[in-house]
Amino acid sequence: MEHIATVRVIYGDTDAGGIVYYGNYLRWFEAGRTELMRRKGFSCRDVMETGGVLLPVIEAGAKYHAPARYDDVLRVHAEIREFRGVRLTFGYRIEREDGALLVTGHTVHAFTRRDGRPVRPPDSFRTLTITK
Amino acid sequence: MEHIATVRVIYGDTDAGGIVYYGNYLRWFEAGRTELMRRKGFSCRDVMETGGVLLPVIEAGAKYHAPARYDDVLRVHAEIREFRGVRLTFGYRIEREDGALLVTGHTVHAFTRRDGRPVRPPDSFRTLTITK
Amino acid sequence: MEHIATVRVIYGDTDAGGIVYYGNYLRWFEAGRTELMRRKGFSCRDVMETGGVLLPVIEAGAKYHAPARYDDVLRVHAEIREFRGVRLTFGYRIEREDGALLVTGHTVHAFTRRDGRPVRPPDSFRTLTITK
Amino acid sequence: MEHIATVRVIYGDTDAGGIVYYGNYLRWFEAGRTELMRRKGFSCRDVMETGGVLLPVIEAGAKYHAPARYDDVLRVHAEIREFRGVRLTFGYRIEREDGALLVTGHTVHAFTRRDGRPVRPPDSFRTLTITK
Repeated sequence: MEHIATVRVIYGDTDAGGIVYYGNYLRWFEAGRTELMRRKGFSCRDVMETGGVLLPVIEAGAKYHAPARYDDVLRVHAEIREFRGVRLTFGYRIEREDGALLVTGHTVHAFTRRDGRPVRPPDSFRTLTITK
Repeated sequence: MEHIATVRVIYGDTDAGGIVYYGNYLRWFEAGRTELMRRKGFSCRDVMETGGVLLPVIEAGAKYHAPARYDDVLRVHAEIREFRGVRLTFGYRIEREDGALLVTGHTVHAFTRRDGRPVRPPDSFRTLTITK
Repeated sequence: MEHIATVRVIYGDTDAGGIVYYGNYLRWFEAGRTELMRRKGFSCRDVMETGGVLLPVIEAGAKYHAPARYDDVLRVHAEIREFRGVRLTFGYRIEREDGALLVTGHTVHAFTRRDGRPVRPPDSFRTLTITK
Repeated sequence: MEHIATVRVIYGDTDAGGIVYYGNYLRWFEAGRTELMRRKGFSCRDVMETGGVLLPVIEAGAKYHAPARYDDVLRVHAEIREFRGVRLTFGYRIEREDGALLVTGHTVHAFTRRDGRPVRPPDSFRTLTITK
């Protein structure tokens, strides 16, 4: 899985339990998949703005192996797991700087129009994914 | 100032210092001003969807008198402080259930179109505000 | 599943796609499970503060059936699905006011001490759960 | 003012108005001041963990000159504006990659113990600030 982004945990990411709030990892999943797409030459922003195509999340899952804490430096890994029809699945792994495994997860997305109806993935995306 | 909303602090609102994260009070300011407007018969959603009019924040300020903690029940108060031209100023006060003062603040907004250009406030809003 | 809480979507919950950000539903899952516990006579806050017992999330999952939008009123439902050893599983369902199904999900938690080590659930919790 | 951090706006930072939610800039203010302190050799984490000293925000303010949008790359600048007694004031400026001014702001902090009582700033901090 590709190492995509490095983030440092701020107070705003943590909770009164002294650890990162469980919902906040989904923000880093997003940062990971968007950067992964960008590296493949596919801009989520362009596709939305020029093509009116969105990639809303239809399923998400996470396993929390160990907690991230304030000021930790985290490495976000992401990969495309599956692409079939209008559905696209990403996998994620978040590690601490010292290599400790913190969180794994996945998200499933559907290519849709602004109104939520499914839409054929843009050719630019299909080509890129097929050719890796 | 009108008591507008009651909220209970969840883990997701707090940080590793054991208190509510300072940026999160701005979410409750928003909940307060939207509910205040609704009670005056003015729906921010309708004005945006039908009139294309937004009320972005152009200034915000907060004073943190005492911290809110996990599971506290908070009372959000809001009022319109000033309305002049395209500008609208709200004031806020957030108290704990036992009456302790936690946070005071204000936001200044401008009536704009989707593209950010200033726009004359809708008549529905002008009438309501003038008649209180 | 018990109807536990009613929330109104604010701008701060939404994203530029015009819908609620996928990670934010996990905040409402939390609000739901904490309120469910409270109704059963079990305060997460007391157990943490007096017993030093936490209930961190070790797994979370969500399916997004339809998007919530700005100013929607949502109903959060929650239930205890399973309680075995130190593990506790909650189920969730979030509906729009008109009954439309938006999101379903679950979280799995482990009773732990502050340092993350598993701990026997407090007797107060065991009794309550067994007697429903 | 020192250029401290570069961030890319994700969906999770934006709202249904198509712009970054006003409260979220306070997260980037935090990232900025913590990194500024680190560069001066002062770790907020160490001071909290070893000295039990916190720096809670007692006042915050922001002016929103132009909105940041999804996928924008932002530059966060931060500086120490004033240090007197137990109070410390930071100033911030957030610009878009192309130099456009987006947000300016400030936060005022007090050195306190965990229980909220004011405490003399650690010598390590006093020395660093005085010597710049």
